[in-house]
Amino acid sequence: MNTEHLKLFLDTFDDISYIDKGSLENYSHDETEDLRFLPHVVVKPSTVEEISAIMRFCNSHGIYVTPAGARTGLSGGALPVRGGVLLSMEKFNRILSIDEDNLQVITEPGVITQVLQDTVREKGLFYPPDPASKGSCFIGGNVSENSGGPKAVKYGVTADYVLNLEVVLASGEVIWTGANVLKNATGYNLTQLLVGSEGTLGVITKIVLKLIPHPKADLLMLVPFYDAAKACEAVAQIFNAGITPSGLEFMERDALTWTLKHFPDITIDVKENHAAHLLIEVDGFDLNQLFEECEKITAVLENFETDEILFAESHAQKDQLWTIRRKVGEAVKAYSIYKEEDTVVPRYRLPQLLVGVKEIGKKYGIQSVCYGHAGDGNLHVNIIKGKLTDQQWTEDLPKAITEIFELTVSLGGTLSGEHGIGYVQKQFMPIAFSEVHLELMRNIKKVFDPKGILNPDKIF
Amino acid sequence: MNTEHLKLFLDTFDDISYIDKGSLENYSHDETEDLRFLPHVVVKPSTVEEISAIMRFCNSHGIYVTPAGARTGLSGGALPVRGGVLLSMEKFNRILSIDEDNLQVITEPGVITQVLQDTVREKGLFYPPDPASKGSCFIGGNVSENSGGPKAVKYGVTADYVLNLEVVLASGEVIWTGANVLKNATGYNLTQLLVGSEGTLGVITKIVLKLIPHPKADLLMLVPFYDAAKACEAVAQIFNAGITPSGLEFMERDALTWTLKHFPDITIDVKENHAAHLLIEVDGFDLNQLFEECEKITAVLENFETDEILFAESHAQKDQLWTIRRKVGEAVKAYSIYKEEDTVVPRYRLPQLLVGVKEIGKKYGIQSVCYGHAGDGNLHVNIIKGKLTDQQWTEDLPKAITEIFELTVSLGGTLSGEHGIGYVQKQFMPIAFSEVHLELMRNIKKVFDPKGILNPDKIF
Repeated sequence: MNTEHLKLFLDTFDDISYIDKGSLENYSHDETEDLRFLPHVVVKPSTVEEISAIMRFCNSHGIYVTPAGARTGLSGGALPVRGGVLLSMEKFNRILSIDEDNLQVITEPGVITQVLQDTVREKGLFYPPDPASKGSCFIGGNVSENSGGPKAVKYGVTADYVLNLEVVLASGEVIWTGANVLKNATGYNLTQLLVGSEGTLGVITKIVLKLIPHPKADLLMLVPFYDAAKACEAVAQIFNAGITPSGLEFMERDALTWTLKHFPDITIDVKENHAAHLLIEVDGFDLNQLFEECEKITAVLENFETDEILFAESHAQKDQLWTIRRKVGEAVKAYSIYKEEDTVVPRYRLPQLLVGVKEIGKKYGIQSVCYGHAGDGNLHVNIIKGKLTDQQWTEDLPKAITEIFELTVSLGGTLSGEHGIGYVQKQFMPIAFSEVHLELMRNIKKVFDPKGILNPDKIF
Repeated sequence: MNTEHLKLFLDTFDDISYIDKGSLENYSHDETEDLRFLPHVVVKPSTVEEISAIMRFCNSHGIYVTPAGARTGLSGGALPVRGGVLLSMEKFNRILSIDEDNLQVITEPGVITQVLQDTVREKGLFYPPDPASKGSCFIGGNVSENSGGPKAVKYGVTADYVLNLEVVLASGEVIWTGANVLKNATGYNLTQLLVGSEGTLGVITKIVLKLIPHPKADLLMLVPFYDAAKACEAVAQIFNAGITPSGLEFMERDALTWTLKHFPDITIDVKENHAAHLLIEVDGFDLNQLFEECEKITAVLENFETDEILFAESHAQKDQLWTIRRKVGEAVKAYSIYKEEDTVVPRYRLPQLLVGVKEIGKKYGIQSVCYGHAGDGNLHVNIIKGKLTDQQWTEDLPKAITEIFELTVSLGGTLSGEHGIGYVQKQFMPIAFSEVHLELMRNIKKVFDPKGILNPDKIF
């Protein structure tokens, strides 16, 4: 963005533009590692018409626009890597209507996911997708990255709840991608094309989500395993016993103990020989049925060597266990410089993935901590810098990550389950996709954004 | 396709090409009204490599290719409207693997949907989408049209089960659209773009579907209403009572009685003052819970004026009721020349849609019979030629349909819930989409098929 363009932009969008040092720095980063890119200007529009005018202006002048939500992303999707306009959606923070008759909610994208969940819950309704950052992330970011979270194993990911989107295109024109209906066979599915497109195809300004009745009860247990790969094996066996838990989370020992250090009030007896834990939740409408499901799960677990199972006895204890699980990412971040990969494989392949990741780590002398949504085959691999030299970190790490992704793809999986590709994973896309395939994606991008102004340098 | 091209094509694909009169006529139609278009040649390849070679040939010579499955479609998606090559997928009829560990099946597209369902059921697994034509339609056609069926109300449509697709592009190149995983945030969602694209973006050659554990029990009831709009109102109230039936079908009186004429062995006491029926099914793993759900449903129904509810007492009686429902389309077809619309609205809007359709019919003197998946807000409006003159049929019908679709869209709905747009509904697309939106779709088509050889004249 040259000086002349910036001046013209500020003249045109005077009342919603910010170019003070504090604003530019504040919007220069998200939760992805330690990356910072200063935008030229931050705008905080509050109407579709304003966004439309901004896009028209930027499209005609070839100015980059990076849409941003709460900037809690882990793949750098909201980083303004080429400067230009940082389009903050924070003022789009209203839930517009809750349709109790059709079980739908229409919301603006800047609503915090947990606020949305809590608000619809007051009506007895449930919006299940709940990324670990649900207390701070925006629903618009969840749609843009196709976020998951622990409930995805039973209830699906964000994509499964998005019925319709209002989108401002790069040209400034506004469309609704679909209709507010549960089934739709009318032309190409632009709704699902926009979901997970990481702000590269348009700016989402309204979201129509499907809701379901909120379950009435849940039960939660924490299971210590002496062997981490066996814990992964148990995951598939639980499903094969006909149970679909509403959460089935895996944590390696370090993930749990590092997190516990940050919560001195929470006591969990992690013994020396515990290698990993499974956190297992079932939910539903009938408590007796849930007790039966827990019995079936413990019967499966008897095939494995586990230590004593902790059943959460109160709402407070459930909250504690989930807090621990949600805060693993932050705890790893506090422990060391790290790099997170968001691998996903068919559920039954999880033990192979875990063993393979550890072997690759051994080869390069790199320590990793793994945790994640084992029920979905979605393993977060956190690679720890620890005592590695800067040279090892910059030279060996990309090789190790390449091998991890090659293993993931060879197991029928892919690069990202829920964090997106954004800025930091795009170099690995050729591991999952052929050049023909990538070219199709690039050309779809051109259909929506011929000048390439929207969220440049992302995905490809 | 000119004579020279045809000769060259036959020289190249001699062993799999058919140009006899019988073949050309047989493949000139599907189940859509009375439309016939002769292809120049029918090919029946049996390998991906053959399809790839055919596409390369046709792409380089600018020859139209229309992929076809079992040709049971109701929107003309498989009609070779510009002649050229009719690419029959009937030899792609193998289920390649059932992965009981990961609950997935990999199938070729030419497998009959019911065969797929029955085969996975032997392993205790469930593939829910079940269009009325499930005994004859191909799973590949279901993916191409994003088919629904009665189970969609609880279990979702075809799109909800498609994890990954092998596709031959117009250029002859082959890609897999995604990965065999339950969650995926890796680049644009080409899988869901291909689902419902009606053979216009590529030729689907392998399909990876998610499976779920098969429910153990179900209960079925048929409820006669004196007022059809009230039956539609009851639908939303059942959901609002916290019940999600596994089937919630609506049939106007004529739909039921016309169908019963074709099944003299089935006795259902349809009285003079019955205006419509709801067919309601619940399913699950616990019979006692299902009885409780039925009690809750009958409690809701007490708010309405209904006649005596028929509870199916045996497996045979359930089969009979479902057979009647599945055969409504064929019965209407046998009764008169007709035109079917596949309207879909938010569930709660259904009574308004039904009343509006009848008012529009009255205005033009046109009789209609409505039935369909009321639980999804998906109403099949069958417009009957009956005693209308040919002139009325050709002049008034498009006006009436336009008004019906305008009403549907104004209620938050859209043109097709599960039949697709294909050839016969494309003229109505501007009612649901702006020119900007349609241009995005046309340009996506160009990305996949720059020469426009794949299934021409469909959707747009």
